Amino acid sequence: LSDKLGLCCLFKNNLPVFTMNYPRIQIPFEITLWVLLASFAKIGFHVYHKITIWVPESCLLISIGLIVGAIMHSVHEEPPAVLTSNVFFLYMLPLIVLESGYFMPTRPFFENIGTVFWFAVVGTLWNSIGIGISLFAICQIPAFGVQDINLQENLLFSAIISAVDPVAVLNVFEDVSVNEQLYIVVFGECLFNDAVTVVLYNMFSFVAEMPVVEPVDVFIGVARFFIVGLGGMAFGILFGFVAAFTTRFTSKVREIEPLFVFMYSYLAYLVAELFAISSIMAIITCALTMKYYVEENVSQRSCTTIRHVIKMLASISETLIFFFLGVVTITTDHEWNWGYILFTLLFAFVWRGLGILVLTQIINPFRTIPFNMKDQFGLAYGGLRGAVSFALAFTLPDTIGRKQLFVTATIAVILFTVFLQGISIRPLIEFINVRRTNRNLETINVEIHCRLMEHTMAGIEDLCGQWSRFYWKDKFMKFNNRILRKILIRDSRAESSIVALYKKLELQNAMEILDTASGDIKLLMIKKFLAADLRNIHDILSKNMYKIRERTVAYRGKHALPNDSQTREILIRRHATIRRSLRPRSCQSSNVPRTHKYFSLPAGKSLESRFDAARWHYTGKLRLSLKSLNTTLPFI
Amino acid sequence: LSDKLGLCCLFKNNLPVFTMNYPRIQIPFEITLWVLLASFAKIGFHVYHKITIWVPESCLLISIGLIVGAIMHSVHEEPPAVLTSNVFFLYMLPLIVLESGYFMPTRPFFENIGTVFWFAVVGTLWNSIGIGISLFAICQIPAFGVQDINLQENLLFSAIISAVDPVAVLNVFEDVSVNEQLYIVVFGECLFNDAVTVVLYNMFSFVAEMPVVEPVDVFIGVARFFIVGLGGMAFGILFGFVAAFTTRFTSKVREIEPLFVFMYSYLAYLVAELFAISSIMAIITCALTMKYYVEENVSQRSCTTIRHVIKMLASISETLIFFFLGVVTITTDHEWNWGYILFTLLFAFVWRGLGILVLTQIINPFRTIPFNMKDQFGLAYGGLRGAVSFALAFTLPDTIGRKQLFVTATIAVILFTVFLQGISIRPLIEFINVRRTNRNLETINVEIHCRLMEHTMAGIEDLCGQWSRFYWKDKFMKFNNRILRKILIRDSRAESSIVALYKKLELQNAMEILDTASGDIKLLMIKKFLAADLRNIHDILSKNMYKIRERTVAYRGKHALPNDSQTREILIRRHATIRRSLRPRSCQSSNVPRTHKYFSLPAGKSLESRFDAARWHYTGKLRLSLKSLNTTLPFI
Repeated sequence: LSDKLGLCCLFKNNLPVFTMNYPRIQIPFEITLWVLLASFAKIGFHVYHKITIWVPESCLLISIGLIVGAIMHSVHEEPPAVLTSNVFFLYMLPLIVLESGYFMPTRPFFENIGTVFWFAVVGTLWNSIGIGISLFAICQIPAFGVQDINLQENLLFSAIISAVDPVAVLNVFEDVSVNEQLYIVVFGECLFNDAVTVVLYNMFSFVAEMPVVEPVDVFIGVARFFIVGLGGMAFGILFGFVAAFTTRFTSKVREIEPLFVFMYSYLAYLVAELFAISSIMAIITCALTMKYYVEENVSQRSCTTIRHVIKMLASISETLIFFFLGVVTITTDHEWNWGYILFTLLFAFVWRGLGILVLTQIINPFRTIPFNMKDQFGLAYGGLRGAVSFALAFTLPDTIGRKQLFVTATIAVILFTVFLQGISIRPLIEFINVRRTNRNLETINVEIHCRLMEHTMAGIEDLCGQWSRFYWKDKFMKFNNRILRKILIRDSRAESSIVALYKKLELQNAMEILDTASGDIKLLMIKKFLAADLRNIHDILSKNMYKIRERTVAYRGKHALPNDSQTREILIRRHATIRRSLRPRSCQSSNVPRTHKYFSLPAGKSLESRFDAARWHYTGKLRLSLKSLNTTLPFI
Repeated sequence: LSDKLGLCCLFKNNLPVFTMNYPRIQIPFEITLWVLLASFAKIGFHVYHKITIWVPESCLLISIGLIVGAIMHSVHEEPPAVLTSNVFFLYMLPLIVLESGYFMPTRPFFENIGTVFWFAVVGTLWNSIGIGISLFAICQIPAFGVQDINLQENLLFSAIISAVDPVAVLNVFEDVSVNEQLYIVVFGECLFNDAVTVVLYNMFSFVAEMPVVEPVDVFIGVARFFIVGLGGMAFGILFGFVAAFTTRFTSKVREIEPLFVFMYSYLAYLVAELFAISSIMAIITCALTMKYYVEENVSQRSCTTIRHVIKMLASISETLIFFFLGVVTITTDHEWNWGYILFTLLFAFVWRGLGILVLTQIINPFRTIPFNMKDQFGLAYGGLRGAVSFALAFTLPDTIGRKQLFVTATIAVILFTVFLQGISIRPLIEFINVRRTNRNLETINVEIHCRLMEHTMAGIEDLCGQWSRFYWKDKFMKFNNRILRKILIRDSRAESSIVALYKKLELQNAMEILDTASGDIKLLMIKKFLAADLRNIHDILSKNMYKIRERTVAYRGKHALPNDSQTREILIRRHATIRRSLRPRSCQSSNVPRTHKYFSLPAGKSLESRFDAARWHYTGKLRLSLKSLNTTLPFI
């Protein structure tokens, strides 16, 4: 095409009146056209939105891609050079993952972090090894004619197809609106299994070319897993803090503020790619780290821009990925083997189901809300594979003889999961009546009560000397308020956060009036932003109530503990409790350290009385703060 | 550098624990780093903002670029491949021009459109031919040793350096804050001289390789100028309307709304580049066309995002351009010729001054506010050359023997104008006391009075039968309201625009409170947004008052003209007036067309009486609408 248009229409031998130079603008021109095409597709789906209720957008996009691919194939046009694995990994994937990280619902995620990592790490390992070995067993049957595929290659292939894909899964699960626990576990799993996949892929692709596997390689593989995962996290946190620190100084160049968010998170991703560690982990932790501080530093307009641009880029990148998936499915050369591909589909489905069954049995005793059978079904059936597997299949080294078969099998798994599971998941979940989202209940009142419970828990943990989630959160909040905020936030003295919240709601209100007035706005969009703002409110409230708690602890000190060494006292007490629990014999003896002179009550009695005092204190204070909230925010 | 890092640290022959693949991420990584570097520079200048008061940012950036270039040169590092002319024209320039077009102050621009095009077309031609012929004369002096440069090559070179550069000029003039007329003329000139430069460049570069120039080439050159200029405009308007039409349907995909603004304007630019017509014209007219409709269609958040992202991209692109200008100045091979370069500087300066002097003398009688001597100085001295010339010099065909000399001379002209003129323009303008900006006077009251005068003028033109600016504006507004708005805007019934204005101000207020509270905001930023909003208010007011006028015209019909054919009546009358003026003999005869039965007053008398009625009518109505404004907007 480019050659045909790259001509220069000369007007005889004179000055040209009309010239045309297509190759010069080809790259940006075609990218622009693809993006526009994807945007039109998105508009089209929402104009005829009855389709998207039952068929996920991803399926529609792949279908369109298949049609376009068929047309291109029939006119012998080259496929667009856009979905090479480099373009995918360097330009398209980071945009989607940045959005996932930036808009990650922080509280549910940290509440389920154990389960998330359990499924992401152990689940992915389980799938890879299970599928790989099963397929190797199938290869031994001569009837299928795939006896030349050895164990290493099978494992490499199974590593590619065992990772659940963030793009496909999020696309389906956002429509279905299952309950929060289920959503966040699937969401987290598909984001964080990247580290495992990267390691397994590198390990097996290295091993696939090796004649023998030494035991030291297994050890190195394990070491590498920690380097990949923790290294990605470390880079993310580092760049996140640097980004937050940089936005301290942008108050006079408001116009380029959003740039820093994009550049630093992208840099985190690229550096992680450079060192072949988990780039998805890096960009997620970077987004999580910087979000809180950056949004306090930048102006309201920059904040809106950052959120909108992240959403926009992710949305268009996702659309393009599915679209190209369809196109490339047609234009690639395939090697079809019924036996191998059908068994791949079967094993992928069975091992996922088995894995969920076994792993939930193990994790359930540790969970506050255990997964029931229906949740397990959701977890197993929601394990869609997608573009990440696809791109990884294309990066397979050419030394692997059956590369084309692996590519075909990967595409088959993707299409099978995205189409069959993606379309049927909504009716099935409605049929078996999986607990649905409870997000509609989220009001500020609910938030305040959750807060109350969390602070009560923190108080109880303080008193019992347990080191659990609340303890660490408490520790981090203190560190954050004393050190991090001072370093990273420009105006760290901060006005009363209740007033800030009020202002935010005012603005929200004004914007909504304006938007509603200026046309029929999509309710979903409002809801999305409302959910985001609720999360903000939650953060603000938490900060504020934390402060109140701290202040009153200091105040109470005048009665019971005359100076501000309360925290030190609690720490000492906590150590004492631990020591007591380590020496079960002496648990009732009063071995309170003598270094602390203010601790006058007998140790045996103190726990109950102190707990009682704490309960009185917290509820009283909460009543007060609720009252102040009611006067400030009359509409709660 | 890339080769050194592109190694793969293998752990003996085992699995690699640590790998590194720099070439894979090189391009995005280096772009990210350059952008970050530019952002840091911008932050730095604003932290030490005392420098930027006297030295324009462009000079500082070029200086930093020179230093970095010197360092790179000393370590024999290759210069970054970023400022090739393709990258500049395809990726960096459109961002800057889009911002100029999108935030163009519409009213002052259309008020001065004649002067702008006068300077852009005739001024640029004047400079090119003047400098070219003068340099050719210099080439005839054997002492300089440049006798091999023929007339065509001299003209080609002069076409490159005669165009005033938008990036450099805007950078300086935005700091200096001269009066609005002066600003808009320089602003418009440097944006619209692109068409002339493109034509001259193509013509002379074609002619430079031709032995003889036929007369037909001159004719083709003129034809090509119209194709380039008007073609660019046509593409811009076309894509602008398509963009506006597309955003009618985006109410359910709010997250990708801003994308259309960027993609369509970029597409306009690329298509113009493809056909070698004026891409700058295309993107400016596209931005001007779509802005009004798009901003009514999209949500408030999208609108903020569009504006912020356009500003952000333009700002960073501009910074990078100056920076790279400095770097490449050092890393390029130069050919230095004292005589040729000094005379180039002299002629560039002299012909610009002479041109302004002559052209203002010609245009002044047609202007309401003529340019005085001080304005002329501002116009002449503000003719900075910049990155466009630089990029054009690099695209010179290699068949030109003295290409290196031309590149060196271009760089000399750029550095001379940007540094000497750029730094000295502020003190000189302060010294000779050029009329400064009067933008501080802009309040809603002033706006209303301007509106009043415009409507009075339109009324007078209606009555006198003159076809001038106000007539055409009137015509366009009618066409716009009746047809364009219905096609392009989703909710074209539109609530009372006074209410919309009130809401906008409410939102503005809420945002400001929020921003001021959340830290020390830069006043300039507020001012910028205020100015933009004033322009919005102006548009809204104009629309509203226009509606009132229409409505009351219909109302008055009940007394003087019993039905709604008032407008037709005026049209017929206007034609009558023209016919009368064409036949000066019969101008007092009552040749009112008999087809119109409602027109009962004698033609001679009607003009004064009707004017009086119109005056009474307009002022009365204005008093009413002012009153309603005062009740709606108590803070005016």
